[in-house]
Amino acid sequence: MNFNRDKNILIVGLGLLGGSYAMALSRKDYHVEAISKSAETIDYALQHGYIAKGSTAVEKEMVEHADVVIFGLYPHIFKEWIETYQSYFKPGTLITDVTGIKGDFVRDMQAMLREDVEYVPAHPMCGKEVSGIENADDKIFNGANYLVTPTEKNTPEAIEMCRDLGWVLGFYRVVEMDIDKHDDIIGFVSQLTHCIAITLMTCNEKEHLEKYTGDSFRDLTRIAKINDVMWSELFVANKVALLEQMKEFREQFERLELLIATEDIEGMRIMMQRSTARRKLFDK
Amino acid sequence: MNFNRDKNILIVGLGLLGGSYAMALSRKDYHVEAISKSAETIDYALQHGYIAKGSTAVEKEMVEHADVVIFGLYPHIFKEWIETYQSYFKPGTLITDVTGIKGDFVRDMQAMLREDVEYVPAHPMCGKEVSGIENADDKIFNGANYLVTPTEKNTPEAIEMCRDLGWVLGFYRVVEMDIDKHDDIIGFVSQLTHCIAITLMTCNEKEHLEKYTGDSFRDLTRIAKINDVMWSELFVANKVALLEQMKEFREQFERLELLIATEDIEGMRIMMQRSTARRKLFDK
Repeated sequence: MNFNRDKNILIVGLGLLGGSYAMALSRKDYHVEAISKSAETIDYALQHGYIAKGSTAVEKEMVEHADVVIFGLYPHIFKEWIETYQSYFKPGTLITDVTGIKGDFVRDMQAMLREDVEYVPAHPMCGKEVSGIENADDKIFNGANYLVTPTEKNTPEAIEMCRDLGWVLGFYRVVEMDIDKHDDIIGFVSQLTHCIAITLMTCNEKEHLEKYTGDSFRDLTRIAKINDVMWSELFVANKVALLEQMKEFREQFERLELLIATEDIEGMRIMMQRSTARRKLFDK
Repeated sequence: MNFNRDKNILIVGLGLLGGSYAMALSRKDYHVEAISKSAETIDYALQHGYIAKGSTAVEKEMVEHADVVIFGLYPHIFKEWIETYQSYFKPGTLITDVTGIKGDFVRDMQAMLREDVEYVPAHPMCGKEVSGIENADDKIFNGANYLVTPTEKNTPEAIEMCRDLGWVLGFYRVVEMDIDKHDDIIGFVSQLTHCIAITLMTCNEKEHLEKYTGDSFRDLTRIAKINDVMWSELFVANKVALLEQMKEFREQFERLELLIATEDIEGMRIMMQRSTARRKLFDK
């Protein structure tokens, strides 16, 4: 089962990610329809050729017409949607998503889902500091990682098709990963970094710091412009793993404070040499 | 007194910054000579036209020929250099630097310096994650801030000339600032950010994280590739201000940990809205 152009695709939720998916897929001649609660969003998507058809209501006909349904919603809204409308899916529908947490969320969703519909969870690791379809941009996929996090409930065919979607969208790398390992890693590489950026941006009340700021500070705080509704939900949903990562970060930070307080140049240099060597692995 | 082309400029120390100064000034037809302990560095600078003349030894003739001497050395080496060679300066020489700390360092230097030589401290807020003249690049000044931190020992004419140097080099903004305020602000916008990057890069031992990493993590750790000799010296030199900034950051980070642990969505959202609003001020 490949992700071919004969599939009818329905995207539910046309925010930054849903909109960028629609943009990429339509540009590559896939047939894309969409549901969004906002009429303006649907109009925008139609006018820009991101979708062939759109609706602000969840129409049974539209849902059952789809072979693949991609959810670009906040986690709790995604869950509510499935509870309310899953009877509309035709048997054999493949659903996937962009949700930034997996683990228990996926277990709950798969337990609740109809047996004849398959949910392959995925997490596109890309974004912007702005939201909404007017900021949709299918270049955000280039250079980024697409994580597919199947469970024992998933079939090889559906996993393959979901991986294929990642390649079609233009991701740099498609990686398969266990749902719990996903939450652990995301807690570190994504959520912890957002926590740090928010903290750095709010821990000093001085005015006019922007006049004296170099690129380092800008780099570390770029993601402090954050969608507070989405991220507060993601932080709570991944609370256990995130708090563990925050604790490890804080303890290492305290170690560095001690090295500075005791003027332990040698200790600092060892830590810096380690960070330098380790960071080199991350160069693109 | 302006920074005109009739001045003879001597750069002492041709690392990334000294080399970039030489490159910019020679390109703009200033007469630049340089001293570096490395013969290879001098050869490289001569071959690339960054300097008109160079020496690996501190020659009295070269030093007394200069109207302006720019020091691109680590703080303690700069201090030793002045102690050893300041008798070589001709009366009226203007000296300036690139040192990343000011405060007591500047007070000590100015107290020790001959009365007929003037030191106007400056701090170019730019850099790269690599060092050495082979990485010199005068584009690093564009978009960056040039901080001039005069004291009551400085004359308006010398301050003016030092500010002019910042403009000639191509900085985006030239700002004047008190030496203690400088250390406070640098402790926050520069040193604290480097502490965070080093910590983030060394607090998790997992292998192959680079496969799953998005741009956020890369942005926050870019500066974790760090010159350990220089930065450990700068951290110790600005210990009091830096430790205060680290404490404020850590306390705010602990506040966020508590918000997450107690699932205080409202508290998180307020913090995120504040970070978003505050970060917008820093957009270039």
